[in-house]
Amino acid sequence: MSQDISPADVLARVAATLESRKPEHGGDPESSYVAKLFRKGDDAILKKIGEEATETVMAAKDARAAGLEAGAVDKLVYEVADLWFHSMVLLAHVGRSPADVVNELARREGMSGLAEKASRKE
Amino acid sequence: MSQDISPADVLARVAATLESRKPEHGGDPESSYVAKLFRKGDDAILKKIGEEATETVMAAKDARAAGLEAGAVDKLVYEVADLWFHSMVLLAHVGRSPADVVNELARREGMSGLAEKASRKE
Amino acid sequence: MSQDISPADVLARVAATLESRKPEHGGDPESSYVAKLFRKGDDAILKKIGEEATETVMAAKDARAAGLEAGAVDKLVYEVADLWFHSMVLLAHVGRSPADVVNELARREGMSGLAEKASRKE
Amino acid sequence: MSQDISPADVLARVAATLESRKPEHGGDPESSYVAKLFRKGDDAILKKIGEEATETVMAAKDARAAGLEAGAVDKLVYEVADLWFHSMVLLAHVGRSPADVVNELARREGMSGLAEKASRKE
Repeated sequence: MSQDISPADVLARVAATLESRKPEHGGDPESSYVAKLFRKGDDAILKKIGEEATETVMAAKDARAAGLEAGAVDKLVYEVADLWFHSMVLLAHVGRSPADVVNELARREGMSGLAEKASRKE
Repeated sequence: MSQDISPADVLARVAATLESRKPEHGGDPESSYVAKLFRKGDDAILKKIGEEATETVMAAKDARAAGLEAGAVDKLVYEVADLWFHSMVLLAHVGRSPADVVNELARREGMSGLAEKASRKE
Repeated sequence: MSQDISPADVLARVAATLESRKPEHGGDPESSYVAKLFRKGDDAILKKIGEEATETVMAAKDARAAGLEAGAVDKLVYEVADLWFHSMVLLAHVGRSPADVVNELARREGMSGLAEKASRKE
Repeated sequence: MSQDISPADVLARVAATLESRKPEHGGDPESSYVAKLFRKGDDAILKKIGEEATETVMAAKDARAAGLEAGAVDKLVYEVADLWFHSMVLLAHVGRSPADVVNELARREGMSGLAEKASRKE
């Protein structure tokens, strides 16, 4: 990990970077992948969500077939990072941030260790 | 959000809860949704990834159709939380944690504000 | 395959069965899986599309890991059938049929053996 | 639809075209989209399955938001055709064909109008 940012701040840092890539904040679609996604809009971003989820499933299958060998599991972590990253792009596009997701997870966790989740479905 | 946990610790708290739901740590599939998922194994967890990604796409479409009305966007945040949560279940199942994902995101961020991502594909 | 239906008529037969499962044609959600899906509506059907697509990807990975052993490839065919089936449920729900899909495929095929597809993207 | 092919033969025609795009049958990745997919292999094809399923879900949401206006529903049919098409590419890649899918659907249909499906899950 980069030395100059603490893990606790990473999601906030990613969110801030995403904000700076918005057209209204000077993001340049010619030089920035994220600015280009914002310009393309909802459907381009949602396609990435579907694509990264599929790649996560594929990487998990590959990791299992490789006996959970470290490199193969690293690849899975990489795909989950891609999935989270594009989720954050989606949230930024509708005016929300990863903090909202973390707050929702905290709310569930606070309500007795995911018991809420357990009771919610199935 | 629950008062007794800081946002910074939420992902670590969720990860700790997930660990406690593993069969070898006494997780009970009869009373815990997560323990049940762990017992069912890879395919059940991966199906949830696909399902929650689809629900995220649906919620984003619904939010846009509702003119990004607050309740509809809250629903999207809720689905992203479900997607991240099940990603964490998957990672826990192969011996990894959300810290690994955050580290990967930090690594990319540290390498010049996602420029790496921009250059990586498309 | 059942002796009393020719392959050519299968999609039409499935479409006719789906029609008969609609509430307005007497479909009973208590006894019919499809009637229940129609009653639940769009989101329940779309969740199945996402789920079956994920299961198709998983089955393909499993088939490859099994060296394309016949039983594993049969499982993949089974999942693709599930995916096509739920696509037909979706089409029926919006007043279309598999014939529309086949016509679209024919249109592309007729336009010089999928050259259109080749030129369309990537 | 093209005048020179009957609907009944369309899937077989598509399957034959796919076969002709395989490297061993002279398919040229430079000029053919499908030949290129075959060369890229499993993961490229599976990513397309995930992508087309996501686009199907998006098109269905758009069609509903548009009050099932004809053009929007046509777009959905188009996406389902893309999904079926790439399913057929996947099957061809593992030595199977759409006839196998149709046979599986016929088998279920023959077993009393999808009652098997109804009883199979949920």
